[in-house]
Amino acid sequence: MREVYIIGLGMTRFGELWAQSLRDLFAEAALGAIKDSTMVHIDSVYIGAMSPGLFVGQEHIASLMSDYAGFNGVPATHIESACASGGLAFRQAYIEVASGLSDVVMAGGVEKMNDGADATYALASAADQEYEAFHGVTFPGLYAMMARAHMHHHGTTREQLAEVAVKNHLHGTKNPRAQFKMTVSIDQVINATPVAEPLGLLDCSPVTDGAAAVILATKEIAQKSGKPLVKVKASAHATDQIALHSRKDLSSLPAVGTAAQKAYKEANIKPEDLDLIEIHDCFTIAELIVMEELQVVKRGQSGPAVSAGFSRFDGQLPINISGGLKSKGHPVGATGVAQIIEIVEQLRNEAGERQIANARLGMAQNMGGSGGSCVIHILEGES
Amino acid sequence: MREVYIIGLGMTRFGELWAQSLRDLFAEAALGAIKDSTMVHIDSVYIGAMSPGLFVGQEHIASLMSDYAGFNGVPATHIESACASGGLAFRQAYIEVASGLSDVVMAGGVEKMNDGADATYALASAADQEYEAFHGVTFPGLYAMMARAHMHHHGTTREQLAEVAVKNHLHGTKNPRAQFKMTVSIDQVINATPVAEPLGLLDCSPVTDGAAAVILATKEIAQKSGKPLVKVKASAHATDQIALHSRKDLSSLPAVGTAAQKAYKEANIKPEDLDLIEIHDCFTIAELIVMEELQVVKRGQSGPAVSAGFSRFDGQLPINISGGLKSKGHPVGATGVAQIIEIVEQLRNEAGERQIANARLGMAQNMGGSGGSCVIHILEGES
Repeated sequence: MREVYIIGLGMTRFGELWAQSLRDLFAEAALGAIKDSTMVHIDSVYIGAMSPGLFVGQEHIASLMSDYAGFNGVPATHIESACASGGLAFRQAYIEVASGLSDVVMAGGVEKMNDGADATYALASAADQEYEAFHGVTFPGLYAMMARAHMHHHGTTREQLAEVAVKNHLHGTKNPRAQFKMTVSIDQVINATPVAEPLGLLDCSPVTDGAAAVILATKEIAQKSGKPLVKVKASAHATDQIALHSRKDLSSLPAVGTAAQKAYKEANIKPEDLDLIEIHDCFTIAELIVMEELQVVKRGQSGPAVSAGFSRFDGQLPINISGGLKSKGHPVGATGVAQIIEIVEQLRNEAGERQIANARLGMAQNMGGSGGSCVIHILEGES
Repeated sequence: MREVYIIGLGMTRFGELWAQSLRDLFAEAALGAIKDSTMVHIDSVYIGAMSPGLFVGQEHIASLMSDYAGFNGVPATHIESACASGGLAFRQAYIEVASGLSDVVMAGGVEKMNDGADATYALASAADQEYEAFHGVTFPGLYAMMARAHMHHHGTTREQLAEVAVKNHLHGTKNPRAQFKMTVSIDQVINATPVAEPLGLLDCSPVTDGAAAVILATKEIAQKSGKPLVKVKASAHATDQIALHSRKDLSSLPAVGTAAQKAYKEANIKPEDLDLIEIHDCFTIAELIVMEELQVVKRGQSGPAVSAGFSRFDGQLPINISGGLKSKGHPVGATGVAQIIEIVEQLRNEAGERQIANARLGMAQNMGGSGGSCVIHILEGES
């Protein structure tokens, strides 16, 4: 398989974007990526979106979006894996370039969540419909059970959960595209409106509209593009049961662990070699469990690590320097691609106020549902 | 890229299967394919489904289906391109094996359309939601406009449209998995309840539950499997505008023509080399226009050709020997994979009563919406 590079980035701001429809959002991101890459032709398009059917009554979106963005006729494929749809669209684009089938492929993600649909119902379709959603369990409830289990097994505290939100909001203040660019305090997080205890409103990622797109290409094309070289060093994907009742332990996320081990092996690196990570912090507890599955801290030590500043912009391993899903926003299908964009900007040394010094190796960890799927990419800057 | 072979086939019967849920259907097809292939391990899974969200409130289906079929942990990806979802899932599996990333990959398709959802609303999400569906145009109406245009430009008659239904129902009587195993007459088709004139009830494919799965593998594994060798000789994909108002001519389907040209070139064959074709006959007019785009007849000559018996089981080029979507049924996400299964059974000489003599080269043509996407595979029997 061939080496694959990322040569173009495009993204809308994230938020309640009432003036832009699904197709407007995608076109803005796609044309941004085209402009950044300076390419005039792309061979094919992959688009991640979780449920444009339930959110806005539109399926068949790959053809529609690529036509609206000006790529009429080009092969275009819609990829869905709940909130991991964007990361998985990126992986399919990676495979297509690596295979030799195509030289220049776009991977995008989009979701229009604020358009009148029942977002909680639509999101619950990422859980087991027959055994979870139908009985009234929605995502805050599922992650609340995971938080309770983690607290029980490892002594994780309410304050440690809140520290994740405090850190990510602090990071998000420096991201011009973030939905909620405000700091929050531990007290504010703990005393926010309860959603599913122990999780309150400020432990949950928001409902967001947005789109993101990147362009992948061969090394030869990347070298000609004049952009700082960023290589896809590993692409790994794993699944797990989507229903919590099928799992042995609610305080772990085996799909993340499996994908991480594959990714480290493929990249031939150790967790401590990473310079920064974007983690899928759909809820504060998710960031803690994922840190453990990625083996950047020992099992049960994620809470104390976050409280000690381990994952802040000035800590040992900056996590969610973009603000994460929590502050940047979480248009579910776009999130995985937006994570890739943050890592590439850091590796290109183009992250402005958010720039981490000497970033060379970064990871994007994107997850579906309550961990029923996980896709991980490790990117390397070669400049 | 490596050569890719098909080594396992599994399929449910098609129909109103009230006793089986979405996951039951997929598991039956997937386990059937595993059994047929004699493989004990698969590297990854691709699943085509158009809108499990709108039909049964379930997204994130790749993880759920693969877990339920016993492949927990394996990378599993849901592909959507409206009614071309199954064919496109097959294409992604093909790319993954061809790339060298995986040796044994499952491609499946599933749809549960009879479960209380508004099937017409769900299907209309494959059209342009803002410009077509919202204003009340659903698929029979869109294809009726195409039929009117074809009649106007080429003199195609109501009887010629009906001949497509008559032929496919005749073929379907020999398919034990078909939903409607009855013959129909020209008079019955023409005098059936009008749906969107000139199309009546018997010009339309039905609402169907069903699943289909195949296993793709390298040549080395295929040779060891002991199955008759069937190779993927070409895989081609193209898109078009999904809204009819964007197109120059309603009597053609440019995405089909584009994909066909790519497929013939890749396989290095001419249309007349084909021994049989499965065409996406969602409506009778679709089969006629697709025949022209595939260049198996001249532009405007599809109607007279069907009336002359060109595409019957005993004609020059048998089309939809399975009964097609019309008689076999059309569980939208499964259709593209079921087409592949029919072709492979014919090339393996395992099609029983439906067997075409000396079949060596077959094509499966799968289409999304009113032609907004098309994926074509050419398969070759090497036994």
